[in-house]
Amino acid sequence: MANPRDHGGGLDAALAQHGGARTDWIDLSTGINPAPYPVPEFAPDVWTALPDHAAQTALIDAARRFWQVPEGAAVLAAPGASCLIANLPALAPKGRVHIPTPTYNEHAAAFVAHGWTLSEDRPDAKVVVHPNNPTGHWYDKDALTAPLTIIDESFADVAPDRSLVGHAARPGVVVLKSFGKFWGLAGLRLGFAISAPDTINRLTDLLGPWPVSGPALEIGRQALSDQTWATDTRNRLSADAGRLDRLVTRTGAKVAGGCPLFRLYHVDDAKALQTQLAKHHIWTRIFPYSRHWLRLGLPAPDQWHRLEAAL
Amino acid sequence: MANPRDHGGGLDAALAQHGGARTDWIDLSTGINPAPYPVPEFAPDVWTALPDHAAQTALIDAARRFWQVPEGAAVLAAPGASCLIANLPALAPKGRVHIPTPTYNEHAAAFVAHGWTLSEDRPDAKVVVHPNNPTGHWYDKDALTAPLTIIDESFADVAPDRSLVGHAARPGVVVLKSFGKFWGLAGLRLGFAISAPDTINRLTDLLGPWPVSGPALEIGRQALSDQTWATDTRNRLSADAGRLDRLVTRTGAKVAGGCPLFRLYHVDDAKALQTQLAKHHIWTRIFPYSRHWLRLGLPAPDQWHRLEAAL
Repeated sequence: MANPRDHGGGLDAALAQHGGARTDWIDLSTGINPAPYPVPEFAPDVWTALPDHAAQTALIDAARRFWQVPEGAAVLAAPGASCLIANLPALAPKGRVHIPTPTYNEHAAAFVAHGWTLSEDRPDAKVVVHPNNPTGHWYDKDALTAPLTIIDESFADVAPDRSLVGHAARPGVVVLKSFGKFWGLAGLRLGFAISAPDTINRLTDLLGPWPVSGPALEIGRQALSDQTWATDTRNRLSADAGRLDRLVTRTGAKVAGGCPLFRLYHVDDAKALQTQLAKHHIWTRIFPYSRHWLRLGLPAPDQWHRLEAAL
Repeated sequence: MANPRDHGGGLDAALAQHGGARTDWIDLSTGINPAPYPVPEFAPDVWTALPDHAAQTALIDAARRFWQVPEGAAVLAAPGASCLIANLPALAPKGRVHIPTPTYNEHAAAFVAHGWTLSEDRPDAKVVVHPNNPTGHWYDKDALTAPLTIIDESFADVAPDRSLVGHAARPGVVVLKSFGKFWGLAGLRLGFAISAPDTINRLTDLLGPWPVSGPALEIGRQALSDQTWATDTRNRLSADAGRLDRLVTRTGAKVAGGCPLFRLYHVDDAKALQTQLAKHHIWTRIFPYSRHWLRLGLPAPDQWHRLEAAL
């Protein structure tokens, strides 16, 4: 990577330091649902053919229905929300962007790479991560104040009633959705931008034709048409988040934030606790700007006992 | 799409006009190898995990070896060559770009979308499609004349000895590779840029982290490590191209160009022949700028008899 930044993931580095095979490790360093949408069977031509207009339209239609996208807004599917984040600063002439911190650091990196300045003073653009990562803070529509306002709803599918997608048709508002996290298929690379049609047209040109793979079009379409799975998943994530809180707070940690896909804990020494868990081949997330914050994703059903033992 | 352009593919439109189910149709409108690299088994975490650095590195290493990338050049994997084509004009301040025509039209569209002017006069950038689509013309190193020179080798894997990748470390030279065509997995979305490290770093920032899906990293790595399959495929494509020429020229058509992945024929009335074949549910490519050119991809092994009957 040109400018490697601090991310979740990075399990490779943990492996190198603490040993073990990759399959031995429990990776709780991200906010990815550990019980993913089951990858369905699909026809072989999903791999071989150039994704056709019909497949793209079918995915977009499913996305519109799932997120109840307002009439005046258009939807673009992309190879991951990250790809959209990298391109969003090109939507406006470079100026001042306000990104309330702490938050997911790719937004600031992308704007800076495009020559923007980070500033809270009369910003030309604003980015809110909704709910915020790692704090879990939810914004409301009063946050949509800049001429270009990006609402990153990568984790918002845990609580669709709090989504701000209803404002996506407002000029200058762009709502981002991630498929990898709630549906747990991060390797698929699928994300969405929802905005006014002229903004979506500009993003489409930046991404080129056929940005999304055949498997992503097909799996995404099926998953976004499955409200039952989504409802069941919300209930399970919520229950598991409670279970994780009970487990971790028993060690003296305090809940500092989060959403049902990840939990943020305040601990005495986050680095020490990360190392303790890593010795048990459990990987977690700490933050360069906090000695006390430890973020944990949810364990998969068969991983709880190992986490409990390691704590 | 914001600005739909004339492409191969578009089988949906042919279906709407001429009927039949999608599976009834033979799509010869692209230059995609109809006997694709067999999709291997892979572990489920290829779908679920964020693609890790090790998987990205393994793919890049395989690509370096396969294409014999020179020491001083770096390699970037992207979700399709099209995604790179859309971003390449951002590598230099907008100016004049020379794109010898006729050729693949996404290059000009991308440069124009970034505010460049098409001109042969002292160009700041130049794009050569090598071999050219649809003429099949191969360039040589004397073509690498502009400060930014893009060599689109999307179809070049049929003849690796003619590749210009050996010049990829020269400042301002960018070589593009496509995985979809020669390996026949266009739905996977995988392409590569090969250039000096500073250029690759800038493209990396434009694409964001994790641009390539887990399946593409894994399948691409395996395929690019399989020289036997590549050699066998070159031989088969070459034989099939000869067989197609014999079949089509028997009807009075003349070979006007092409490469082993697609053949360009000069016929009396390309539109009429396209329609004749479409009535037999065989889809081909014609060009808005020529009444006489018809381009055909290679039929799959079980499709030859239908093409023969339809001609």
